[in-house]
Amino acid sequence: MPKFMDVHRGMKGITAEQLREAHNADLAIEKDEQVHFEMAWADPESGHVYCLSEAPSAEAVQRIHERAGHMADEVHPVPLTVK
Amino acid sequence: MPKFMDVHRGMKGITAEQLREAHNADLAIEKDEQVHFEMAWADPESGHVYCLSEAPSAEAVQRIHERAGHMADEVHPVPLTVK
Repeated sequence: MPKFMDVHRGMKGITAEQLREAHNADLAIEKDEQVHFEMAWADPESGHVYCLSEAPSAEAVQRIHERAGHMADEVHPVPLTVK
Repeated sequence: MPKFMDVHRGMKGITAEQLREAHNADLAIEKDEQVHFEMAWADPESGHVYCLSEAPSAEAVQRIHERAGHMADEVHPVPLTVK
């Protein structure tokens, strides 16, 4: 399944609890689109949130985020990964 | 150790081999600054590369990237993580 990195901006001041709630809102409905949100990282100072997912398409990622109430500003396929 | 997400732009057409070489160039010198680059993800189409690291500071992350020949366009602390 392809991997995607999406970016949300404008989340300045986001707390650990708000990040958890937003991520849980995605997890609750992700199966409707065969998406899985693996991890998310947030910078409360700049307001950026990065989400790593597996999904059939960028549009599927965005549909889940939109229904969960937080559309992404960018969704990028990331076919290349290194550890 | 704090975590950071950094973003490189302008890497359109990056190949798996080039991503591996760039990552290895970071890994080869990261200990000089007590940095560890955990993972990197690339989108050859948009030219964005995202790197997740642990480091004492954003400046330490950038110094390693600079010495390795690929300064980041943004380096963000990501104190919040969810799975």
